Amino acid sequence: MPYTEIEYEVRDRIATVTLNRPQKMNAFTFTMRDELLDVFDRIDADDDVRAVVVTGAGRAFCAGADLSAGGDTFDKDKAADLITGEGDRLEDGTPRDGGGMVALRIARCLKPVIGAFNGAAVGVGVTMTLPMDVRLASEKAKFGFVFARRGIVAEAASSWFLPRLVGIAQAMEWAATGRVFDAREALEGRLVSRVLPPDELLPAAYALAREIADNTSAVSVAAIRRLMWSGLSAPSPWDAHAADSRLMAALGGAADAVEGVTSFLEKRDAEFPMRVGKDLPPEVPDWPAR
Amino acid sequence: MPYTEIEYEVRDRIATVTLNRPQKMNAFTFTMRDELLDVFDRIDADDDVRAVVVTGAGRAFCAGADLSAGGDTFDKDKAADLITGEGDRLEDGTPRDGGGMVALRIARCLKPVIGAFNGAAVGVGVTMTLPMDVRLASEKAKFGFVFARRGIVAEAASSWFLPRLVGIAQAMEWAATGRVFDAREALEGRLVSRVLPPDELLPAAYALAREIADNTSAVSVAAIRRLMWSGLSAPSPWDAHAADSRLMAALGGAADAVEGVTSFLEKRDAEFPMRVGKDLPPEVPDWPAR
Amino acid sequence: MPYTEIEYEVRDRIATVTLNRPQKMNAFTFTMRDELLDVFDRIDADDDVRAVVVTGAGRAFCAGADLSAGGDTFDKDKAADLITGEGDRLEDGTPRDGGGMVALRIARCLKPVIGAFNGAAVGVGVTMTLPMDVRLASEKAKFGFVFARRGIVAEAASSWFLPRLVGIAQAMEWAATGRVFDAREALEGRLVSRVLPPDELLPAAYALAREIADNTSAVSVAAIRRLMWSGLSAPSPWDAHAADSRLMAALGGAADAVEGVTSFLEKRDAEFPMRVGKDLPPEVPDWPAR
Repeated sequence: MPYTEIEYEVRDRIATVTLNRPQKMNAFTFTMRDELLDVFDRIDADDDVRAVVVTGAGRAFCAGADLSAGGDTFDKDKAADLITGEGDRLEDGTPRDGGGMVALRIARCLKPVIGAFNGAAVGVGVTMTLPMDVRLASEKAKFGFVFARRGIVAEAASSWFLPRLVGIAQAMEWAATGRVFDAREALEGRLVSRVLPPDELLPAAYALAREIADNTSAVSVAAIRRLMWSGLSAPSPWDAHAADSRLMAALGGAADAVEGVTSFLEKRDAEFPMRVGKDLPPEVPDWPAR
Repeated sequence: MPYTEIEYEVRDRIATVTLNRPQKMNAFTFTMRDELLDVFDRIDADDDVRAVVVTGAGRAFCAGADLSAGGDTFDKDKAADLITGEGDRLEDGTPRDGGGMVALRIARCLKPVIGAFNGAAVGVGVTMTLPMDVRLASEKAKFGFVFARRGIVAEAASSWFLPRLVGIAQAMEWAATGRVFDAREALEGRLVSRVLPPDELLPAAYALAREIADNTSAVSVAAIRRLMWSGLSAPSPWDAHAADSRLMAALGGAADAVEGVTSFLEKRDAEFPMRVGKDLPPEVPDWPAR
Repeated sequence: MPYTEIEYEVRDRIATVTLNRPQKMNAFTFTMRDELLDVFDRIDADDDVRAVVVTGAGRAFCAGADLSAGGDTFDKDKAADLITGEGDRLEDGTPRDGGGMVALRIARCLKPVIGAFNGAAVGVGVTMTLPMDVRLASEKAKFGFVFARRGIVAEAASSWFLPRLVGIAQAMEWAATGRVFDAREALEGRLVSRVLPPDELLPAAYALAREIADNTSAVSVAAIRRLMWSGLSAPSPWDAHAADSRLMAALGGAADAVEGVTSFLEKRDAEFPMRVGKDLPPEVPDWPAR
């Protein structure tokens, strides 16, 4: 699948996904949605990818939904021909929210995902990034959960992710006002982990991805990512304990654990032999079925 | 219903609820409980109210339960004649905790609620405010989850709200010690969003309410408030995605969305035509039934 | 039960549990696991214990799993003779993760638990402490969720506890990199509540324990601890409200509530007569059954 609205590149075991409609501030379209769904399948299937950086081309990260249809933008009937793909509807026939399709796909990704906010991230441009593991922002980034100013609702499952990331009080202040805010407010509110000068943003994102790729077992990281994100959804710690116990039993005697402990005792770098593609045990949890 | 222990006023689409027993530091009574339950019904039913500010008359916000019955204060048998109203008991006949009745009513409110802590907020005086969206504090405010010092338990569903607001470690430190703490500690622990000089407290609360009232769709804000607070309770992001999708389908083609996008593209202020009273779609979630 | 790998002491109603294999940096073994499970039973059964401080002997807190079996350390078959005790397996026969057994036991403790991190806390050395109520750190403490560097997964139900304590973004950054980090990063990330000079660590932990022991009802604190931690797991605030209401009904007329209110009105210290061992009402929630 050749991409027209994103760019995809893998270098040194780190994938970069670039939202790439710079003339439109990388506004989100059905095409971009489908390309993002596709690229995360590709990332999961490629054992050469250990971590992912997502950023935007030009001066924006993503300005939100493309509004070129004007007042009809969010009308499901007007957009009907765009939302008839397989899996695009809930069981009751309701068209699925596109930002949510991307967000839920990222939530299940087997590789850590780092958002690098080079500029404005507004509407779906920020909500679809909430299931990324780490968000880093340029000093030039701006954010806005502007839905209430457009007459719609906060989507992309942000009513689930945002209060768990930043607390319900901060989530409601941003969502009820619809205000656009700067990187400093995003940092104080814990939406992003760090704010950096513009030319240090991508190096910081790659340094973090590098730290993961160079030091860890890919199978461990995939299993941990699924454990943590589904753990946020688990009814009680007893569920997490059962999942942990099964994974410790499945992985504790496997090659990566032997290498992990042995290399540590020998004070040398580990060379983990296992691969996500063929070695991920069935005990790795997926999210609860809908 | 004329109120005797609270004051209610609506000005410029912002409601103010004032706890009003200043001679008793606004201590909480069964009368105050019933008046608060009533006023939030009134707020939800009044399309002229876009946001709510709750504060206290005199030097306290609310000193907690009125202790004028001395050692009998929390005895359910002694208070039996006060707790026989309809809806005052659980299905098994247990009298319902009054702070919890207020807290759960606020949690379901269709308008954003801003707490403005002018002074001490202790016991139920703080727990009933946890489902408010934003809490702002005067430098003179004090807080205390003092239940363990009175031989009772943290109520008003605070065992649900408090750990989700401030983290379980901070929640347990405050609840296990029962300590009274100042506004600075409340800010560092994320119980309040901002601390202000006393004479800047109400102006800051009204400025925030104004930001909501002047810029957003009332129907969007009502739907988002219910989505976010019930999302905090949703088993998984897939549930939130289904709720989002239904609301985007219901609202995406409606008048407020058309006006929201059109006014944005035309770079003018929006005039949202829809009203909560008649236009709130049935897809807006309520909390899970007990 | 005499202990060989921990020390246990009660003084002035405060229990101290010291991980005590200083020559091995207090590395975690099956023996330590069993002694920790035993000591928390003892703590719950002893009405003379009002709060618990957990720390490490020597320069480490706990360096993680004892790796003296080398590459076989986490192999469930090699360790089979160590994990055949009663309750050591899930219903499906999977050996239970030992760190999780300790963590879940601490989560249900009827007394507040304060972790005092004197030095390195790595792997299970930190994950088993997540259900403690408060974590205080010496400036010399270090932390690491190093599992991905050893080829295993984050255990001890940390996929449940950690994202709820520090947020999923911080949890994933630490777990995906497996990095070892200092006390300052732990404080900024909200893993610990305070960082102290080494010789002020234990005094601060005891001061906090003292604040609880000297001012509060033991029955209230036990009930609140169970309410809060199980509240973190409750499906909705309506569940918490039902639990609150039952506890307020059970305790509101009891001796500690009478003394708590009366002593407050008389402006004197309270002398709470009730004891956890005989007076804890059946309405105190336990965690949901697995």
